[in-house]
Amino acid sequence: MLEKLKAQVYEANLALYNAGLAILTWGNASGIDHEKGLVVIKPSGVVYEELSAEQMVVVDLDGEVVEGGLQPSSDTPTHLVLYRELDGIGGVAHSHSTYAGAWAQACRSIPCYGTTHADCFRGAVPITEQLMPKALEGDYEAETGKAIVRAMEGMDVGEFTGVLVANHGPFTWGASAYEAVDNSIALEQIARMAALTEGLSPMAGPINSQLRDKHFLRKHGDGAYYGQVREGESIRDEHQGR
Amino acid sequence: MLEKLKAQVYEANLALYNAGLAILTWGNASGIDHEKGLVVIKPSGVVYEELSAEQMVVVDLDGEVVEGGLQPSSDTPTHLVLYRELDGIGGVAHSHSTYAGAWAQACRSIPCYGTTHADCFRGAVPITEQLMPKALEGDYEAETGKAIVRAMEGMDVGEFTGVLVANHGPFTWGASAYEAVDNSIALEQIARMAALTEGLSPMAGPINSQLRDKHFLRKHGDGAYYGQVREGESIRDEHQGR
Amino acid sequence: MLEKLKAQVYEANLALYNAGLAILTWGNASGIDHEKGLVVIKPSGVVYEELSAEQMVVVDLDGEVVEGGLQPSSDTPTHLVLYRELDGIGGVAHSHSTYAGAWAQACRSIPCYGTTHADCFRGAVPITEQLMPKALEGDYEAETGKAIVRAMEGMDVGEFTGVLVANHGPFTWGASAYEAVDNSIALEQIARMAALTEGLSPMAGPINSQLRDKHFLRKHGDGAYYGQVREGESIRDEHQGR
Amino acid sequence: MLEKLKAQVYEANLALYNAGLAILTWGNASGIDHEKGLVVIKPSGVVYEELSAEQMVVVDLDGEVVEGGLQPSSDTPTHLVLYRELDGIGGVAHSHSTYAGAWAQACRSIPCYGTTHADCFRGAVPITEQLMPKALEGDYEAETGKAIVRAMEGMDVGEFTGVLVANHGPFTWGASAYEAVDNSIALEQIARMAALTEGLSPMAGPINSQLRDKHFLRKHGDGAYYGQVREGESIRDEHQGR
Repeated sequence: MLEKLKAQVYEANLALYNAGLAILTWGNASGIDHEKGLVVIKPSGVVYEELSAEQMVVVDLDGEVVEGGLQPSSDTPTHLVLYRELDGIGGVAHSHSTYAGAWAQACRSIPCYGTTHADCFRGAVPITEQLMPKALEGDYEAETGKAIVRAMEGMDVGEFTGVLVANHGPFTWGASAYEAVDNSIALEQIARMAALTEGLSPMAGPINSQLRDKHFLRKHGDGAYYGQVREGESIRDEHQGR
Repeated sequence: MLEKLKAQVYEANLALYNAGLAILTWGNASGIDHEKGLVVIKPSGVVYEELSAEQMVVVDLDGEVVEGGLQPSSDTPTHLVLYRELDGIGGVAHSHSTYAGAWAQACRSIPCYGTTHADCFRGAVPITEQLMPKALEGDYEAETGKAIVRAMEGMDVGEFTGVLVANHGPFTWGASAYEAVDNSIALEQIARMAALTEGLSPMAGPINSQLRDKHFLRKHGDGAYYGQVREGESIRDEHQGR
Repeated sequence: MLEKLKAQVYEANLALYNAGLAILTWGNASGIDHEKGLVVIKPSGVVYEELSAEQMVVVDLDGEVVEGGLQPSSDTPTHLVLYRELDGIGGVAHSHSTYAGAWAQACRSIPCYGTTHADCFRGAVPITEQLMPKALEGDYEAETGKAIVRAMEGMDVGEFTGVLVANHGPFTWGASAYEAVDNSIALEQIARMAALTEGLSPMAGPINSQLRDKHFLRKHGDGAYYGQVREGESIRDEHQGR
Repeated sequence: MLEKLKAQVYEANLALYNAGLAILTWGNASGIDHEKGLVVIKPSGVVYEELSAEQMVVVDLDGEVVEGGLQPSSDTPTHLVLYRELDGIGGVAHSHSTYAGAWAQACRSIPCYGTTHADCFRGAVPITEQLMPKALEGDYEAETGKAIVRAMEGMDVGEFTGVLVANHGPFTWGASAYEAVDNSIALEQIARMAALTEGLSPMAGPINSQLRDKHFLRKHGDGAYYGQVREGESIRDEHQGR
């Protein structure tokens, strides 16, 4: 079942690995079939070189395994909270990528220091609060998802395509698993450039909101003129749907 | 039309990607046919792995698409201003490369800290002023080009082969699209070494102008003795023209 | 003899190299056959591209070469002390990897700044004391092993899978040579992220012990729920045994 | 003529490039035939992907081209001074590698912060004085060589296998072109780890001289026990002579 989605999620997980965002068995990406209410996700603890599309695990939105002989990622409950609470997302990616991970460990949101950032996020990359002892004792992974949702309160999932989990690392999302991984790749580059910017100019402040919005809106939303538009579908969407 | 130039511009764009200066769909390179007054440039938002020479878009100097089924890069108006205003350039490259991008985000020109820099730029790498609100509201990409031209006022395009756009990233140029990309590669290395130099010696100052000119002039200009000269053409030019 | 173990140790050494933890002839990994009391280790000073499984050297726990035409790694006495003194380890890896090496050179243990760290180490990565003049004059490599053992006093080899040797670099261990190398790879990433965390937040402190234990224990020990468990054997163990 | 040496020098130049120490046409390696008094060196300004063994240029110790259709590296006079003045070296490598280059730009010698360094250099990596105006006006490349020789005054070319040229970058040497490049690779790693060490511990001092000598001497000199010794020739020498 869901062969196409499994293939996509498999490729998205490999993309996460090939982009250098995950080492060993770390990191995971998932995608959702909204109609069926089913999520496809990487199995837990499998090395990327031995991963196959068939190994992808299908779970329902309550976390019950519907198909697959392997255990789903231990972060599955986090993904599920995001699918349930963040309207319109089609894929989720999580990694401990070096620079985004370092910002998360520093418990800092990433200021918007330039247009690279503004092309992808319409403002500072949010960071969650630290989890309370009770959350750590309870359903930890679901609580992590809830903390992300709280950090997104009042924000648009299209304008802020990811959140740093304090002391942990980034979760990103998008229209598909591919796009979620692309947003993890972009976030890592943003995080790296921001760290270097502070090194070169410790007093640097965020760019002005007009330049930020100009860049964000030329790439996203109704007035966007970046990329290719053909019959209501961008080349990039086509690529992502192959 | 312009098959050879399209092939060059295609290869130059791939070189930008393979050198690690661009990720995802970011970055773009172009080349000009001075006789015909036509510019060949990367299409907007296409992933590098799927790019082909045929997809390169031909535009005239007013930005009208002359050939090509895809939209040209959204940064095309910036390239066109540079071709119109900077005499003698044959190619332009733009990226959000990590270190040059960080200097741009820090709104700092890059001091000439050593001979690696002096081999490529005859002094500090210039940075534009920040764009005014009016420029952001208007024809933003053309205004970006104008800001670059202002930053080059009184400077030689052969001695300063690139400029950082404040809060944004580098634009470089050269005799061809290949050379423009080579100059982006060199600029990224210069930017990286300069950041590290400041880390090791916060009080470092630029090298003396005699050493700077010695290095620049042994590689560029009439008295240059670096590289191969055969029948008025260097090996490197040959390579670039293949 | 020990063909399977030799193949494993050979692959583990290559993995160390391919992960970028070792350059030139630096670094070494070994594995032990507990029943026979024999250790297989990389030969000294051989470049990785020319290494073969047959070249692996078999030594007994006193360091006598039992099989192999090449000299064993000059660090063999360090490995042997670890096998003799740290109960239950099956493999050892040593490198001068960049970031773990820098922490070792800075003579600092690595604070647990986040869950990436806590997934792998149940607390700060220990560092040895500096060796005394007498140890340097005597059996230096064995003394290095003893310093590691002292740094592990009262600690569990499953909870702390490696130690930094002051002024030198990391030694890690695991159930097999593969796992020892995986732990070196993880340690290098932990070391890198910790250095970046301090750059972004000079006053950063370690994460609270509850979050640390939650992450460590979901991945390791009896209550672990990360990875795949089938007939008492994880997929990862299977992989490591191929 | 000198086909074997040309092949070695060609391979050594490629190794410099493949190790990431040189980009574009930067960097160069050479080797000498002591009996014939001839030096083989990379041609100037040729891209590495198009380089061939046949293109290597043969010059005598006065810099006259003895064989080869291309101009030798513009840094040839520096190499020749080193061959004339530093007894016993068989190869020279020069690059603008990132970290060694940054130390050179910071005009700092590299302190011996750990055993990685001590395995390769028996003390701080020397740095030249800055060149005087007269030297810059005169035979600049030969003057660079003389500055290196002055920085080596009283030092052993086997104990200090390279020097940083102030504001410029590293020159290294060895028994062959291969070994010179290996020493450039090692120096770059030393330089990188030293920069990171200072970041983690700004007050770090050099390791004590006993540990430094222990490490240097276990790898080099009469009492060395690192590597393989067979019939008076190490495996590494064999590799280098293939």
